[in-house]
Amino acid sequence: MFRTLFAASLLAAASPLAAHVNHSPLVDPKVAALRDATLTGDTYAWDITEGLTTEVGPRLAGTEAEARARDWAVKKLTALGFSNVRVEPFNMPVWSRGRESAEILAPFPQPMVVAALGNSGSTGPDGVSGEIVAFDSVDALKAAPDELVRGKIVFVDHHMTPTQDGSSYGGFRSPRSQGPTIASKKGALAIVIRSIGTDYHRNPHTGVMTFDNGAKPIPAGALSIPDAEQLLRILKRGQPVRMKLVLESQVVAGQSGNVIAEVPGRDPSLPPILVGGHLDSWDQGTGAVDDGAGIAIAAASAKHIMDAGRPLRTIRVIWFGAEEVGLFGGEDYRKQHGKEPHHALIESDFGADKIWKVNSKLGDARKPEAEAIGKALAPIGIVTGSFNEADGSDIGPMLADGLPGIGLSQDGTRYFDLHHTPDDTLDKIDPAQLRQNVAAWTTVLAILSGGIEEPKARKRR
Amino acid sequence: MFRTLFAASLLAAASPLAAHVNHSPLVDPKVAALRDATLTGDTYAWDITEGLTTEVGPRLAGTEAEARARDWAVKKLTALGFSNVRVEPFNMPVWSRGRESAEILAPFPQPMVVAALGNSGSTGPDGVSGEIVAFDSVDALKAAPDELVRGKIVFVDHHMTPTQDGSSYGGFRSPRSQGPTIASKKGALAIVIRSIGTDYHRNPHTGVMTFDNGAKPIPAGALSIPDAEQLLRILKRGQPVRMKLVLESQVVAGQSGNVIAEVPGRDPSLPPILVGGHLDSWDQGTGAVDDGAGIAIAAASAKHIMDAGRPLRTIRVIWFGAEEVGLFGGEDYRKQHGKEPHHALIESDFGADKIWKVNSKLGDARKPEAEAIGKALAPIGIVTGSFNEADGSDIGPMLADGLPGIGLSQDGTRYFDLHHTPDDTLDKIDPAQLRQNVAAWTTVLAILSGGIEEPKARKRR
Repeated sequence: MFRTLFAASLLAAASPLAAHVNHSPLVDPKVAALRDATLTGDTYAWDITEGLTTEVGPRLAGTEAEARARDWAVKKLTALGFSNVRVEPFNMPVWSRGRESAEILAPFPQPMVVAALGNSGSTGPDGVSGEIVAFDSVDALKAAPDELVRGKIVFVDHHMTPTQDGSSYGGFRSPRSQGPTIASKKGALAIVIRSIGTDYHRNPHTGVMTFDNGAKPIPAGALSIPDAEQLLRILKRGQPVRMKLVLESQVVAGQSGNVIAEVPGRDPSLPPILVGGHLDSWDQGTGAVDDGAGIAIAAASAKHIMDAGRPLRTIRVIWFGAEEVGLFGGEDYRKQHGKEPHHALIESDFGADKIWKVNSKLGDARKPEAEAIGKALAPIGIVTGSFNEADGSDIGPMLADGLPGIGLSQDGTRYFDLHHTPDDTLDKIDPAQLRQNVAAWTTVLAILSGGIEEPKARKRR
Repeated sequence: MFRTLFAASLLAAASPLAAHVNHSPLVDPKVAALRDATLTGDTYAWDITEGLTTEVGPRLAGTEAEARARDWAVKKLTALGFSNVRVEPFNMPVWSRGRESAEILAPFPQPMVVAALGNSGSTGPDGVSGEIVAFDSVDALKAAPDELVRGKIVFVDHHMTPTQDGSSYGGFRSPRSQGPTIASKKGALAIVIRSIGTDYHRNPHTGVMTFDNGAKPIPAGALSIPDAEQLLRILKRGQPVRMKLVLESQVVAGQSGNVIAEVPGRDPSLPPILVGGHLDSWDQGTGAVDDGAGIAIAAASAKHIMDAGRPLRTIRVIWFGAEEVGLFGGEDYRKQHGKEPHHALIESDFGADKIWKVNSKLGDARKPEAEAIGKALAPIGIVTGSFNEADGSDIGPMLADGLPGIGLSQDGTRYFDLHHTPDDTLDKIDPAQLRQNVAAWTTVLAILSGGIEEPKARKRR
């Protein structure tokens, strides 16, 4: 009896479901069609990410490699049919990495894997050697008397675990952001931290830091997580631990630039929609998830709007220069254009895994626009979050200035396995998830653009 | 009705199941008790693996680090209560790695991650530069005319995927084992291969090779798999690709040794059971899965027998020296002791993941012993395989000579993600799976040992 009833109810439900699923009338069918076509059909984003990471590879801010990336970008954006493709250059100090190594001298001699942090002081070619003094957190380092730290190599641990929204990065990055300054002020010889990351590979996570409040630059490096845990095991034996550290690095004057391209709107008097990511990368990987994918998602979605017709509003694609080492590109754009009105700012700089949430900060008057975006994104698994929030590293200061923005939150669960490591390479990108990003962005642009006028030849009769 | 019946049948089954599960009468209850106690309670194997990898770390064959590992081993095995702890030394040539780097010079300049293969020739400090000629397999390289290869840097690809039994290593390692000799004979400047591995991290897989048939040593390295795929993408653009390769390495005369320890049997006239693994490791990781875990499993299981009482037969634990670079330890033991009778040889050298199959090669007369082993291992998820097979790298030649052996096959699905890379570190070992290995080995030793006589004070009354 049970079986029969169950089978019968399945059969009853099957035919209407199979024939057609009714979609929400709240979503413009043209927007839905663009979304669904890009979800399965986008190739632009992969093409850009593959091209940049293969033909340029690593592109540290201010270096000759980043200049080659700009040349590549101008050619690529021009070939894709964007208008007004240009570079807005700016000057900046250029930090670069030299030889680097770490070695336990005693009690258990062995090599360790280390990477200098951005803006690290240099040990010089002969390196420095000293006793390790270890802290479980930056708070423990802060609380330590200077005598405990003076002349020693500070080690700072942390307890970061993966989070979908990436919040553990903010919560646990203080060993990198604050550790070097505090250690320097207390007279440390150098500092090594547990890499700010969540993986277990021998690939340390670099990242920028600055010596604040007049702190003298000291050598500052990140051990890979397996090495940091090895150091903790060695320390646990209770004997004094001595390390030799070589971190050669240098700073010279240099130049970077923002690459800008546009899909011109039908009404040039309307404020543009700014979509972007950053072109520079750290020097050890090829910058695929950070941020090859981001610039690709931004440009691919703008290109899909261009392919569909002419938007009412101009879409401005910006590939920021020199983000990693201090948001120089974002600051330069803000200085040049930050007082001009923008319809919205959107940035992709968190990998290429699926978008799971949309936030917005368009203001109360534009809540219907924000709600329409939420309705259109729900069918591809995106939940509507806040109406008073948006984020992005380069655009962050302009959002804080009051410009409107959208935040499309990518899944960060595996992002900090790769972030700022040699492992940030093309193979880490899942093409299907990358397409979901493009579909979401194209959907958002289709709504924000104010309506796309199809080319005459292609108009429906 | 359905629900009621279903619930009733669950209830009916619940109480006898919960109270007791009847076990096979074919397994000696004492053996089953040892197996189950070690499965949940072993701490020796973790302690040995943690200790060796922390207090010695990398221990390349023939180096001062491997000598420190032997000192550590003698102390540890003595402290555990083993008898006749000794080192049997032997001489060998010692290859070691120097500076190493790879760089694409054209058409898309960028660094790549490379590791020299064991016995690689040296490029000298200035390195070598040449055009890449790429092959999809060793067969393609073999088939190429010498003119195509002469003066160039050969690249050989492969298509290895993970396999539970590790057979894809045998099937796909020819780029490393044969590639360098073939490339050298054809006049290549150097060779780089796609790492023989299955992961996607920037950690190249080293491994030994030899230049056969009078081939002149040339520089030979492995690119990490992401780098090998990057090189393929660059090659696909169709322009000539130039690489600069620096692989400094050297060979000097040196010494290694086997560390031996015993659990003396009640009847010293009976042939011993030999259990082992190898003490040396490659130089870039700490040799946790290869083969810290292996020597730990062998010693821990012998120690559990020792703790239980006196076995009839002697159990001889051997931690072979210099396995990675050419099975020198196994060959030395074979030369010294290979003509003596042994009750069985067993080796652990495939990581620390679960044992899933037991093979044996004890001969027809001892099939009941082999079957008893299979019955006793089934409850911890181990299937009985062949009665005519056993394996192990160091013991392989002696098995081929006709000595009896057991093969406890570990799950190799993730082994070649780590094998011969900097990523072979303690964090990769799952303590629960390590204990399952110890439980299986202890079970096998309990059966092979011919019966354990409990200490008088602990005998049951």
